[in-house]
Amino acid sequence: MQNIKTSGWSGRLVPINIHEKIVGGFRAYQKISDFNGPIDLAIIVIPAPLVVAEVKSCALLGIKNIVIISAGFGEMSEAGKQAEVEIKEVAHKYKVNILGPNCLGFINSKVNLNATFANFSPDQKIARRHNIAFLSQSGAIGSAVLDWSANKNIGFSYFVSLGNKAILDENDFLEYLLKDKQTELVVVYLEEIKNGERFMNLVSRLARLKPVAILKAGQTKTGARAALSHTGSMAGETAALLAGLKRAGAIILEDMTELFNLMRLIKKPLRRHNSDLYIISNAGGPLVLTIDEAAKSNLAVTGYMDLLGDAQSPKYQLAIKEALIKKKVDNLLVLLTPQSGTDVEKIAEVIGSFSKKYPQKLICTSFIGGPAISAGKKILAKCLIPNFDYPEEAVRVLAHYLNHQKRVADLRIYPAPKTQKKFVARQETLDYLESLELLKKYKIPVARAIRIKNNLSAVKYPTIVKIVGPELIHKTEAGAVFKAENKEELKKIISNNKLLANPKNYAIAQEKITDALELIVGFKRDAAFGPIIIVGQGGIYTEVFKDLSLEVNDLDERRALAMIRSLKIYPIIKGVRGQAGYDINSLVKVILGVAKLAKANPQIRELDINPLFLKKKGALAADGRAVI
Amino acid sequence: MQNIKTSGWSGRLVPINIHEKIVGGFRAYQKISDFNGPIDLAIIVIPAPLVVAEVKSCALLGIKNIVIISAGFGEMSEAGKQAEVEIKEVAHKYKVNILGPNCLGFINSKVNLNATFANFSPDQKIARRHNIAFLSQSGAIGSAVLDWSANKNIGFSYFVSLGNKAILDENDFLEYLLKDKQTELVVVYLEEIKNGERFMNLVSRLARLKPVAILKAGQTKTGARAALSHTGSMAGETAALLAGLKRAGAIILEDMTELFNLMRLIKKPLRRHNSDLYIISNAGGPLVLTIDEAAKSNLAVTGYMDLLGDAQSPKYQLAIKEALIKKKVDNLLVLLTPQSGTDVEKIAEVIGSFSKKYPQKLICTSFIGGPAISAGKKILAKCLIPNFDYPEEAVRVLAHYLNHQKRVADLRIYPAPKTQKKFVARQETLDYLESLELLKKYKIPVARAIRIKNNLSAVKYPTIVKIVGPELIHKTEAGAVFKAENKEELKKIISNNKLLANPKNYAIAQEKITDALELIVGFKRDAAFGPIIIVGQGGIYTEVFKDLSLEVNDLDERRALAMIRSLKIYPIIKGVRGQAGYDINSLVKVILGVAKLAKANPQIRELDINPLFLKKKGALAADGRAVI
Repeated sequence: MQNIKTSGWSGRLVPINIHEKIVGGFRAYQKISDFNGPIDLAIIVIPAPLVVAEVKSCALLGIKNIVIISAGFGEMSEAGKQAEVEIKEVAHKYKVNILGPNCLGFINSKVNLNATFANFSPDQKIARRHNIAFLSQSGAIGSAVLDWSANKNIGFSYFVSLGNKAILDENDFLEYLLKDKQTELVVVYLEEIKNGERFMNLVSRLARLKPVAILKAGQTKTGARAALSHTGSMAGETAALLAGLKRAGAIILEDMTELFNLMRLIKKPLRRHNSDLYIISNAGGPLVLTIDEAAKSNLAVTGYMDLLGDAQSPKYQLAIKEALIKKKVDNLLVLLTPQSGTDVEKIAEVIGSFSKKYPQKLICTSFIGGPAISAGKKILAKCLIPNFDYPEEAVRVLAHYLNHQKRVADLRIYPAPKTQKKFVARQETLDYLESLELLKKYKIPVARAIRIKNNLSAVKYPTIVKIVGPELIHKTEAGAVFKAENKEELKKIISNNKLLANPKNYAIAQEKITDALELIVGFKRDAAFGPIIIVGQGGIYTEVFKDLSLEVNDLDERRALAMIRSLKIYPIIKGVRGQAGYDINSLVKVILGVAKLAKANPQIRELDINPLFLKKKGALAADGRAVI
Repeated sequence: MQNIKTSGWSGRLVPINIHEKIVGGFRAYQKISDFNGPIDLAIIVIPAPLVVAEVKSCALLGIKNIVIISAGFGEMSEAGKQAEVEIKEVAHKYKVNILGPNCLGFINSKVNLNATFANFSPDQKIARRHNIAFLSQSGAIGSAVLDWSANKNIGFSYFVSLGNKAILDENDFLEYLLKDKQTELVVVYLEEIKNGERFMNLVSRLARLKPVAILKAGQTKTGARAALSHTGSMAGETAALLAGLKRAGAIILEDMTELFNLMRLIKKPLRRHNSDLYIISNAGGPLVLTIDEAAKSNLAVTGYMDLLGDAQSPKYQLAIKEALIKKKVDNLLVLLTPQSGTDVEKIAEVIGSFSKKYPQKLICTSFIGGPAISAGKKILAKCLIPNFDYPEEAVRVLAHYLNHQKRVADLRIYPAPKTQKKFVARQETLDYLESLELLKKYKIPVARAIRIKNNLSAVKYPTIVKIVGPELIHKTEAGAVFKAENKEELKKIISNNKLLANPKNYAIAQEKITDALELIVGFKRDAAFGPIIIVGQGGIYTEVFKDLSLEVNDLDERRALAMIRSLKIYPIIKGVRGQAGYDINSLVKVILGVAKLAKANPQIRELDINPLFLKKKGALAADGRAVI
């Protein structure tokens, strides 16, 4: 209540409390039904076991918007989980929007409403543009961000603590932000994404209008690597998700440092004409490190000036003028270390006045040091100049921001999800020949294979012999792959084979394919994101090089080509050093066939074609494994 | 003079000045020879053109130590370069130590001497352990570090601005630090390394005693990648250097954030029993991000406690006690975000008192936020607790530090360099067959090859035919490699070949090798580091996958094996998924042979064996290119 009162909200505040008659200076009611009048929003902050009943009371009164601050639900206990289910039922029945439970609340700066319980008292003397929308699945990160921003000229258009996402989730707010003009940067912290296809659709639409930056917990490479193991979860959801989100136009943040620093950057409305960076410095060492980092972060640097250690404000003034006016620089990073004679405050003022005079230029700084630069930093903050403790940190967020600006015109919208029948997982592997038949239906060419019974003369020699069966997934490892030069060798292989003692297994003869690249193409169905398509190095190389490219849904020729181009082995596919290339068109067709198959067969949970032999002309699937 | 006077130095200070009779309250002399008495150290701060004469005067008076602060030498102009050469000549002739020119000076806290011109006035109220030695090739980074440390409890045993390194360089100071007990952490910023072999030797010796952290400018991946191109500089000096330094035991810093943060960490004398980390947090989101980063940074996390958002100091107290005492945790990271009810200062005090009670435990924190945590941060600083703005930053430097502790027992000393005759580069490529003969001398097995003249019957078919010559480096690209099934095909290839019109070229027939991996083994001689040995994927894959492992000098079987193991293709070499492996022993022998060859033939600047065919049994060099 204190937060709502001090935030300047003009609406009427009605406390409900069973004990008190007056709360925070307002007349309180025992029950919500005692109040006679329309209620726009109910905020519930009572012990968890009492919440369900209260939500019901609100719903019956026709209240359409509820925030449940209270914790003690799904995150806590089985009873809490059950209560959360009941809340959802009520909400669905009465069509109520619910934020939370287990959240900090929200801030809507448009109506001056701070409906959070965060200890958040922004310094009133600081001028702010409320242009950042911040959505957080972690209340702790939310409160740290609010506290951090309290004494900085960084302001939020909307701040939303998502909590347990019983009803409203990130997607609902992203959709709202599509129409909001005040917001110039969207920052999202997430731990899980419930409806991935909708999320991709919204992010791709929003990213064309303004930068959308996402910090996703659980990015761990070791985790992703573990997920990449052949059996089980080939695709690695996190890797696929992040790759997909990048293509959809999102800025993927690496850590909290980047999350906070990006917010530092966006203080002014900025539409860049140009995405290259220019650097001015009084320090050679930091300048070299900055250029290093720009190369690492893939940020184009058009030029730099080293003013040397004795540079004072007039030299900075001249250099900045030359950069902004003569060289028409749009994005400028100014470095400073305090050296003997450096007039730090005056230099800060010079930078500030340029920033004021050229509001469309992005000017930021990295003043590096301690006491000698603190007064200068204050001047920079006053002039809305983003300053970074170290120049590499500046470069990282500048790279995110400027590279986003560069890509924005090329971004394509990911399609909205269609509702699909849900299938219960059965964990059953299709028979070897059945799998190949399935591939043929989607025009994926398949290596000639016949089941060996008493038809040894029908086989063309030399031939590859495979023992296949539901448990023989890694055939090479299991010793189930052979070469036979003639009928006698084939006979010997079959008659001696222990694997064939298992009645589920049988032998097939398959044409021998030479002069081809061994690739893998397949998909895995993700609960949130739908089919995730994979292409990469196949055979024994799949696990060794982990050279895989992943794409979510919505595959067309362009995206399939982009997947192929992002492989490490791409130069070989294309043809390197005078060698002829392989048939990329055929590979594209196989990928699109697999995508089509995935869409048309929701009962199939995953499918691997491994190896797919890519030839100089054509491609042939030599093994397919489909799991239902 | 002001810095020397206020630093508490007890020696006599003698100003030399042509104009003044009194400088800074001390009697001044017109010329240094006017002063009658022993002089330990001369500090020269006069215009560059006058410096050489002054150095000579000092040398003639028998002064053995000179600091030249003055700039305007090699970094500035040709005249400056010449002056620097003259200074070197004087120094060599009279055996004078010279620091600089173009440097900030140095600080030696053991004798309370601040002989820098940095605006550096450390807060006298702060208790410091002067335990960090900081060497910097950049004066700007040096002055930023000093300024930054001025209001923190971070102290330097030695601070050295290396300047142009005319006489004294990083190696001289590293050698001194080997015997210094006060220093517990060595931090080095470098732009170039002049004597790489001596540097490796010193770093490897010093790293066994205390952590040595190096930030090397010019690490850019794009730069390194460019250096990895096949011709010219195959090895990529920076990559080799960094890999070598890591093996020698150095901590390789990624950026200035890590450089400053590592100094934050080392406030107390710490010998770890254990290198694993335990985490306590009141915030789930930051905790997940911390664990993510630990996995990325290869830091072992033994456990963690999520105290939830309402945790107050008693809960922190209990959790820390349980961790330190019951779980015997040695390294603890405590996270905090300010939430409703978080008693930040009390929690800081609790952490401080544990840190005092258990001085051998490494306790550090990441309090995340703004105004709500600033008082708490001050308490932490007072208690010498390293606090980091964001937890991932803490994890990165903890990983550096703790992983160093883990490796320290296994570190081996790199040998000191021996003086070698210098050879003038001639840029001449050895003849194809000469190169192969050279390899044979070092017991490197070579694929049978004969020069084709009129001896077509002496060739064993099928055969590989190559046109060789001094300009045919990329033979596949040049269309200089063929397969001949019989004498007729060979005849046809030779008679039609345009490349053979060049009289420098000739044709050879080489045995066809199958079922082998194509690798590259070679070396490139670096001016500072001597021969850099390379092993990696060969043939057309060298440039595509850039799967190379580099090692500097001092190769033994163990190190050769380590090189092989660090290749991406190693699983294939070893044998993966039931496949037989390749002959690792033979590969080790080839690598050691190349290393021996490199040592014994200082006239050879670089050598590539590409491809080296590694077979299931044995290895065969099929092409060798040696440049003199």
